[in-house]
Amino acid sequence: MGSKWTGIVSPQDFVFGEKEDDMLLLDCGRKLGPFSLRFETYGELTEKKDNAILILHALSGDAHVAGYHGKVGEKPGWWHEMIGTGKAFDTNVFFVVCSNVIGGCSGSTGPRSINPETGRRYNMDFPVITVSDMVRAQHKLMKHLGIKKWLSLSGGSMGGMQALEWTTMFPENVTSVIPIATTARLSPQSIAFNWVGREAIMGDPEWRNGNYEDSVPEKGLSIARMLGHITYLSDESMDKKFGRKLQESSRYSFDFSYNFEVESYLNYKGQSFVERFDANSYLYITRAMDYFDLSSRFPGGLVESFKNVRSPFLVISFSSDWLFPPYQSREIVKALRANSIDVSYCEIKSAYGHDAFLLEVEVLSKLISDFLRNRYDEVKND
Amino acid sequence: MGSKWTGIVSPQDFVFGEKEDDMLLLDCGRKLGPFSLRFETYGELTEKKDNAILILHALSGDAHVAGYHGKVGEKPGWWHEMIGTGKAFDTNVFFVVCSNVIGGCSGSTGPRSINPETGRRYNMDFPVITVSDMVRAQHKLMKHLGIKKWLSLSGGSMGGMQALEWTTMFPENVTSVIPIATTARLSPQSIAFNWVGREAIMGDPEWRNGNYEDSVPEKGLSIARMLGHITYLSDESMDKKFGRKLQESSRYSFDFSYNFEVESYLNYKGQSFVERFDANSYLYITRAMDYFDLSSRFPGGLVESFKNVRSPFLVISFSSDWLFPPYQSREIVKALRANSIDVSYCEIKSAYGHDAFLLEVEVLSKLISDFLRNRYDEVKND
Repeated sequence: MGSKWTGIVSPQDFVFGEKEDDMLLLDCGRKLGPFSLRFETYGELTEKKDNAILILHALSGDAHVAGYHGKVGEKPGWWHEMIGTGKAFDTNVFFVVCSNVIGGCSGSTGPRSINPETGRRYNMDFPVITVSDMVRAQHKLMKHLGIKKWLSLSGGSMGGMQALEWTTMFPENVTSVIPIATTARLSPQSIAFNWVGREAIMGDPEWRNGNYEDSVPEKGLSIARMLGHITYLSDESMDKKFGRKLQESSRYSFDFSYNFEVESYLNYKGQSFVERFDANSYLYITRAMDYFDLSSRFPGGLVESFKNVRSPFLVISFSSDWLFPPYQSREIVKALRANSIDVSYCEIKSAYGHDAFLLEVEVLSKLISDFLRNRYDEVKND
Repeated sequence: MGSKWTGIVSPQDFVFGEKEDDMLLLDCGRKLGPFSLRFETYGELTEKKDNAILILHALSGDAHVAGYHGKVGEKPGWWHEMIGTGKAFDTNVFFVVCSNVIGGCSGSTGPRSINPETGRRYNMDFPVITVSDMVRAQHKLMKHLGIKKWLSLSGGSMGGMQALEWTTMFPENVTSVIPIATTARLSPQSIAFNWVGREAIMGDPEWRNGNYEDSVPEKGLSIARMLGHITYLSDESMDKKFGRKLQESSRYSFDFSYNFEVESYLNYKGQSFVERFDANSYLYITRAMDYFDLSSRFPGGLVESFKNVRSPFLVISFSSDWLFPPYQSREIVKALRANSIDVSYCEIKSAYGHDAFLLEVEVLSKLISDFLRNRYDEVKND
């Protein structure tokens, strides 16, 4: 079993595809290389290499899923409550890996990386990538780490899409899957929200066709993020959290500055996002989500997409999630069961909306730790 | 009874408040005058003036609610299917009035009107108006038309807010009310969507602090409208109407131009809105909606707001409307019933989302024509 994890983690970089035949062959037909994946690991890989779990991040996530980098005043990783000693993804038992997606802006190769052919940033010359492409890159990382089979894959939102993609593309490398608050295909409503967010970015004159350098399209990216935030919350959670509370006085200010708490909250979220996320990456990653559709690849639809899958699933959705509503998880469950796959499905009653996958730690921990314990017992007894 | 209405209508202008004591005293404390209301009428007012119905429009509506202006190739008014000979609001029987709200951009005084004090457009010097202010202006129009009491008031969305406001501000002038797809207070989620739309407009460099002249903030206004459109439809109706259908080819284009039908639809809707609507009006009218809250005016909440109301209500909501969901209509119904007001409530099963108030003509017609016939019978027998 792995040793105790200290809580401090160092990001690592995996560089691949320096030679033509190692390059990443993308869905669009182009090849990407060399490319780099930023990743972090937590816990220790057993000698049998049977305890590795891959965590997949959502749109604005990164490789830093748990612990600290050791800087003063820093926040822990984005799923810190779920990963660590004695937690759901118990680092005393499991070897947990998380990498930043290609197309991202947190260490992996993305539109702001230098194109080796030109010596300049890719920007909009970066190829349009897909969720499958993200998974292809992660597959190369898996081999680099010497892992043959993930004990489990898990992620919420776009992380769940990657988990589903993994099990259809590489079923032989997957023991079990935990997709959370996700979908097998992006709905037109979500495509529409992504479109509006991208229009805000690309309509910002500071965007300069993606070639911004000294100043960035702050306004556009902030608008995209504020819009995103509304979709991550629920009507109910916004009512509980903000209601119609006013920001400063007890009266309307009769102007267009922020009067309501919810307005200043959105403003703050938009501003802080601009400081940590890249506008071009936002375009590329939302486009990858738009293109995600496991249901249209085969004449037999989603059922046929899962035809080679054998891994047990734990599928989780949240009652108030209107971005990836429970019915979309039930579609996944139905298609898996049509393939006689062992599926546990849990629709968690929660007011938190889509963000529940980050917030409902207690109930998620219970479900996931039980599921993982059973999968690991099966693997060890194999 | 009124004579047959020909289908051709001429807009009229009501100008008021040229003297200090006629001016409109606004919620913000400022006075507005002179001001002008553009209005249209359909059918004929009886001698007893007992058959007048006021239709209230939504955010992007105008006074032209039915019929034609007689131009080549024009579209009929925005609720044409509901108003006319033998229709729900039967112009053989009723005298129907609709006026453009103050703050609007379709003939009534709004931010783009000339400020008589400066000889220049008001733009952002226009006072921040409220739904009550809109109703105050309509009340002056009512007196101008020699009407003492509306047989009924009806409108969807912000039109419903005005109807509710009328009956609380001027209960003596209202015989009955038909609020459709509306709310007694804007939810934080809707305030948040309005905020993002305004940020898009005010963040557009062409907006120039509201003082645009030769070019308008097209990009910002179009983004606000596209976002609005998503909230007017439902997940289900978007899935039925567009699904994931691609625009031109059967393959993804692997770029950021529009690939999906839903994207080009939004683009079209955004573009055509820019041609007919003013950006500053969009700011002012959405702000008026934000400020609408009948539930916080008295210690006794919504119930107390309705304490002087005696008019019968027909309250209508739509099952898939997530902008003003049925629970918000039920709150209105509950508060009315707590005042022993005669309320009929109908939640119409529809996939059309908020837009259902414009589209579910058949079922609306049945409900409304029955309700109006009964109200008119009561008035005539009084």
